[in-house]
Amino acid sequence: MILNKTKINIDFKRLKETIEQSASTGKIPKDGLRRLALTKEDQKMRDLFKEWMEEAGLEVRIDDFGNMYGRRNGKNDLLPVVMGSHLDTQPNGGRFDGVLGVLTPLEIIRTLNDHHIETERPIEIVNFTNEEGARFEPPLLGSGGTVGIFDKDYVYSRTDKNGLTFKEELEKIGYKGEEENRLKQAYAFIELHIEQGPILEKKGVSIGAVEGIKGMTWLEIKVNGKGGHAGPTPMALRHDALFAASHFIQRIEERAKSDLDLSATVGRLSLKPDVTNCIPEEVIFSLDVRHQNDDVRLAFINDMTKEMEDIANQRGVNLTIKSLWEVDTTHFDTYLIESIEKRARTLGYSVERLYSGAGHDAKYVHEIAPTSMIFIPSIGGISHVEEEFSRDEDIEKGANVLLYTVLQLANEK
Amino acid sequence: MILNKTKINIDFKRLKETIEQSASTGKIPKDGLRRLALTKEDQKMRDLFKEWMEEAGLEVRIDDFGNMYGRRNGKNDLLPVVMGSHLDTQPNGGRFDGVLGVLTPLEIIRTLNDHHIETERPIEIVNFTNEEGARFEPPLLGSGGTVGIFDKDYVYSRTDKNGLTFKEELEKIGYKGEEENRLKQAYAFIELHIEQGPILEKKGVSIGAVEGIKGMTWLEIKVNGKGGHAGPTPMALRHDALFAASHFIQRIEERAKSDLDLSATVGRLSLKPDVTNCIPEEVIFSLDVRHQNDDVRLAFINDMTKEMEDIANQRGVNLTIKSLWEVDTTHFDTYLIESIEKRARTLGYSVERLYSGAGHDAKYVHEIAPTSMIFIPSIGGISHVEEEFSRDEDIEKGANVLLYTVLQLANEK
Repeated sequence: MILNKTKINIDFKRLKETIEQSASTGKIPKDGLRRLALTKEDQKMRDLFKEWMEEAGLEVRIDDFGNMYGRRNGKNDLLPVVMGSHLDTQPNGGRFDGVLGVLTPLEIIRTLNDHHIETERPIEIVNFTNEEGARFEPPLLGSGGTVGIFDKDYVYSRTDKNGLTFKEELEKIGYKGEEENRLKQAYAFIELHIEQGPILEKKGVSIGAVEGIKGMTWLEIKVNGKGGHAGPTPMALRHDALFAASHFIQRIEERAKSDLDLSATVGRLSLKPDVTNCIPEEVIFSLDVRHQNDDVRLAFINDMTKEMEDIANQRGVNLTIKSLWEVDTTHFDTYLIESIEKRARTLGYSVERLYSGAGHDAKYVHEIAPTSMIFIPSIGGISHVEEEFSRDEDIEKGANVLLYTVLQLANEK
Repeated sequence: MILNKTKINIDFKRLKETIEQSASTGKIPKDGLRRLALTKEDQKMRDLFKEWMEEAGLEVRIDDFGNMYGRRNGKNDLLPVVMGSHLDTQPNGGRFDGVLGVLTPLEIIRTLNDHHIETERPIEIVNFTNEEGARFEPPLLGSGGTVGIFDKDYVYSRTDKNGLTFKEELEKIGYKGEEENRLKQAYAFIELHIEQGPILEKKGVSIGAVEGIKGMTWLEIKVNGKGGHAGPTPMALRHDALFAASHFIQRIEERAKSDLDLSATVGRLSLKPDVTNCIPEEVIFSLDVRHQNDDVRLAFINDMTKEMEDIANQRGVNLTIKSLWEVDTTHFDTYLIESIEKRARTLGYSVERLYSGAGHDAKYVHEIAPTSMIFIPSIGGISHVEEEFSRDEDIEKGANVLLYTVLQLANEK
């Protein structure tokens, strides 16, 4: 096996330059990037990426969702090892989210070329369309479409806020390819990504071997109390919807803190009439709950619902709980998780297993192929903002872990 | 004294008909009333009220703020006993708020005329302009202007949401009178009003002898935490602005409940970014605190501020507290409060002293004359909505208490 014969590394300077070129395509102030799916900026980036893939000797193909693939043939016609992520960004995104998972694979191909390394299996790299969902909702349209989670009519008919459809915009930028080009099967799929959370940085760990994507429930909770003038109504006679909602939110926080892996977020809240001297008569808030163990998540929802009902009864307010979205945990492939861990250790990097709290293309690709992800630290744990940042040394380490993991897998028969 | 010689009553049927005529001037669905200050509806109501005052033999005068007075001379040229309130309403107001305190005095004049009763002192009735503040902010412009709380330029330059000034609109409806006509001094001022709270109804009491207007503080509280993606950030590492705000609001409620006379209302709340899967990074909310004892109110604000600062430190969020408005308690005239109580008892009605949580014209008139108010029960404690309601028997009782209180005062030398 190649690993035992040669000690190679990716060319970090070249990778950095490639990332810089991407970062100047849709650049916004504060080192940010605005490259919404299927816009002119996305088109420009795709053209560049296509050129780079061709220069690296890859066979380029585009599927009917605009997903872009570059294939490096192996010695045998076996199922390929695939690496990829997305080149689209949030409206005020950073330069690494998604991008790193597309350009690092390109650098790996270039490194293999530099060292004239042949592999047993083909290697493919991929850029999925509209991962962010920032222009066309829902997110993950390209990867979800190609693996059959979303049907073609659904994907094509998604509209942006100006009413332009996915299909029209895909055709306009010249990236509507053939259905037969979709990713159908793979020996393995590996996605490199920034963590978007603070765990690795806080622990001083360089590499995350991602065990899966946490399951999630979204609820909308409506509290109806009794309005009135803030002056003349004694506290004891009030049925204040905001006091009740605050009580719920306090209990949500307290309960969620009892399990280190559980997260509960009240991200949206509105009240009526929302006037300084009026007692709130209605409050609506969202609740986002995530955990890698679906039973734990469902038990939390169940217990919290019961407790909120009790509190609502005591307070004489009315409670309506609506489920907006529910998705179970995706558990990635054990062999791949172990492979990533072992490669990181062999390279002398600290590594830790963790579940992703956010969704990624890997979630859907896992439907058709053994999948895992490699995380690198996000400074301050922030993403989806211009200030998103990852250190050079972490990017380089992540790239080398990806290189050796893929090299190993691509030489397995 | 007349009370000992004759047993008279107001004519409730006539008063009810007068209220009905008012209720049809600016009528909206669900028995509501929309008669914003200085509009065509207000003009129509004023014309009607002027006509009624003239028919009742009153000397009508209008001051430079459009406040309307009707004077019934006494046997002597002493300071008058004055009764009044306002004929303007909220955009979706009821038929009694303010109106009752203007039309009941008219009924009292009519009753005195019916019985050919002369009094030692003159009696005046008054309709103050723009009490509600629903069209021109702040509220109480007419009463505040006439007693010198607001200067003339300030009142005249107030604009409505269409940019029309108080002065233009006052001239347009033909109710800009003379400065010399303002209410300057009075022997006593009594305002009859619906309670706008639930205390009298809950206790089964017919008459409230109002001791004053509770002092008030308005704060704006800003909480700055740390945003982030709801998925990847563990609870223990969050500085969630809404969790912190909910904690504050819970403590505000708990502390406020420890004093039966204290009220604390969080009526407004907004958060950023207000997205289901984003940790709130900023929350701004209002706090309205009222108590008849200014020291208690200020101690509450002080203690609450300290506690919120402690909680903010523990949670690693930033706290900014801004004072928006602060007004001390108005304590009404003890002799008048006692007079109202005694007259109610003499008539066989249950009566209780209480402070008003809401502002009224009486608050400002108290600056130039001994003042008190008579409250009657508001069903359900609600006001500023179409469903505002008071029972016939309570209106009649309130009217008779006002009649006998004014008769007594108007015969004092």
